[in-house]
Amino acid sequence: MCTDAAALVEAIRSLAVRGAPLLGIAGAYGVALAAARGFDVAEAARALEGARPTAVNLAVGVRRAEAAYQAALARTGDPTAGAVAALDAARVLHREDAEASARMAAHGLALLDELLPGGGHRILTHCNTGALVSGGEGTAFAVALSAHRAGRLRRLWVDETRPLLQGARLTAYEAARSGMAYSLLTDNAAGSLFAAGEVDAVLIGADRIAADGSVANKVGSYPLAVLARYHHVPFIVVAPVTTVDLDTPDGASIEVEQRAGFEVTEVMAPQVPVTGPGGGVPVAPLGTQAYNPAFDVTPPELVTAIVTEEGAVSPVTPEALAQMCAGPAAGAPPAVG
Amino acid sequence: MCTDAAALVEAIRSLAVRGAPLLGIAGAYGVALAAARGFDVAEAARALEGARPTAVNLAVGVRRAEAAYQAALARTGDPTAGAVAALDAARVLHREDAEASARMAAHGLALLDELLPGGGHRILTHCNTGALVSGGEGTAFAVALSAHRAGRLRRLWVDETRPLLQGARLTAYEAARSGMAYSLLTDNAAGSLFAAGEVDAVLIGADRIAADGSVANKVGSYPLAVLARYHHVPFIVVAPVTTVDLDTPDGASIEVEQRAGFEVTEVMAPQVPVTGPGGGVPVAPLGTQAYNPAFDVTPPELVTAIVTEEGAVSPVTPEALAQMCAGPAAGAPPAVG
Repeated sequence: MCTDAAALVEAIRSLAVRGAPLLGIAGAYGVALAAARGFDVAEAARALEGARPTAVNLAVGVRRAEAAYQAALARTGDPTAGAVAALDAARVLHREDAEASARMAAHGLALLDELLPGGGHRILTHCNTGALVSGGEGTAFAVALSAHRAGRLRRLWVDETRPLLQGARLTAYEAARSGMAYSLLTDNAAGSLFAAGEVDAVLIGADRIAADGSVANKVGSYPLAVLARYHHVPFIVVAPVTTVDLDTPDGASIEVEQRAGFEVTEVMAPQVPVTGPGGGVPVAPLGTQAYNPAFDVTPPELVTAIVTEEGAVSPVTPEALAQMCAGPAAGAPPAVG
Repeated sequence: MCTDAAALVEAIRSLAVRGAPLLGIAGAYGVALAAARGFDVAEAARALEGARPTAVNLAVGVRRAEAAYQAALARTGDPTAGAVAALDAARVLHREDAEASARMAAHGLALLDELLPGGGHRILTHCNTGALVSGGEGTAFAVALSAHRAGRLRRLWVDETRPLLQGARLTAYEAARSGMAYSLLTDNAAGSLFAAGEVDAVLIGADRIAADGSVANKVGSYPLAVLARYHHVPFIVVAPVTTVDLDTPDGASIEVEQRAGFEVTEVMAPQVPVTGPGGGVPVAPLGTQAYNPAFDVTPPELVTAIVTEEGAVSPVTPEALAQMCAGPAAGAPPAVG
């Protein structure tokens, strides 16, 4: 349990709280918590938004609650009113995220049905994008769940997602709980599935989408995009509009978090007594250096479509993305398909 | 310690003895052991060559020792003479493999220097192909070692190689022992290295090479081949000539071993008490089905070169492969480069 913003920062850094949409909600509640407990709200907001550099939703959620706090404070001069306003902002974000999940799921399923008119979709996914990362049912996983409920999901292929095994630990759990037909695989085995013609589409989430349509997501997403292109399989990114960061011009401008080597050199399992410097079981020689980027960046030319709660952008162009981010009020809704 | 062929079959199945060249040597010694202990040699040979279906070297080694046994038995009528002949055959194979390693290393380094004239090679490798799988210094790893000794290896990128982590457990150990500059990475992170321009060449081994040049190797090799092609990086396969199986016409004819799901759903670590049905720590919900092919198949059009002790074949064509397998006596040596 996080009773102050510092504890929440630590929970976000250690990935106890993770997943782009949930990070936004948690960040907003963290600001509300700091305000309610009389901490320095601006200081707490900077610590929270800096806890992880790649997921833009975190900063968006933090700033939204902070802005609500500051506006109420300026209007009333009362920090308590500011705290109430920050909590309201967090609750609104939470509710909006749940609604956005449902709309992403509907748009995503419509796109799948259009791209794969035969039905019986065999979907490959990476990392974890379901209810555990969302106020609702998630992003990419919510689309697969929607296909499942419609009777059109033949199989969910679940990448285990090294190093932290979010696929094995979390997505497999969510798939099992939902009664889906699913199979777990090492990230290495995805290539064999593509080669055997066993993948109809790849569905992943995103941690940040640059203005040019470059997608930062869990490491291992980019190799899937290259494989999908080589095998002419649609590669679909599902994320709320808040994941699109028009202030990040392109993929090269996305800061990719490098994480500790022990995530690779040691295997973590809660059942296992601590033995290595990182708290896990060593699987590599002591002193081994690891290259451990948390994310990779997929360029827009490898992305078939980006699906948000506002619709689907395909092909992915800066203009189409900007139009979608401007919202329906700014013009005609973006074309789906 | 394996005191009979059945124990060796189990050691091969469980991967205590693994790696294509070493399997050939072990298979030959296994036949010699069965002969020396008075077991049915033909029966032991069938059990040994069937222990794993994909690595052709295993069957080659078994049959060579068995043929030596049968020939000596037919000539002398004395099973003891047969056992001596089988042991001699195994020892010759062992010595030949060591010599082949040295020649593969020389041919491979010459090819690297030709393809990458700038030196300072940054090599990505997958699985384990060093002294632990060979009578000598191995296949792909022997080439990297040769570059290291020549002062031309800038870095060895070591894929951890899920599910059994041969890269983390074995290749990292061999790299550390050799004093190489190396870094370990999750198989997922290879894509980021390619995208950053940090890989000059991929070097891998092989478990079977079909007559058309299709290469069966540890699962995860094919995705690397696709990434290498997308990034215009040479993808080089290093294996002894015995790995080429002219009786297997193409990639589709290669039997790919499917292994138990618990290799994926549980994490194995010798330090950890047994907790799951497979003897490891469960990392996925109970009852999770896993797709766990041990190998994948890379088509010849994605392979820049195949390096054996006889030289390098590039481009990889059925004719060039067949000529190399016929040996130097059959004509001019195959072109390198």
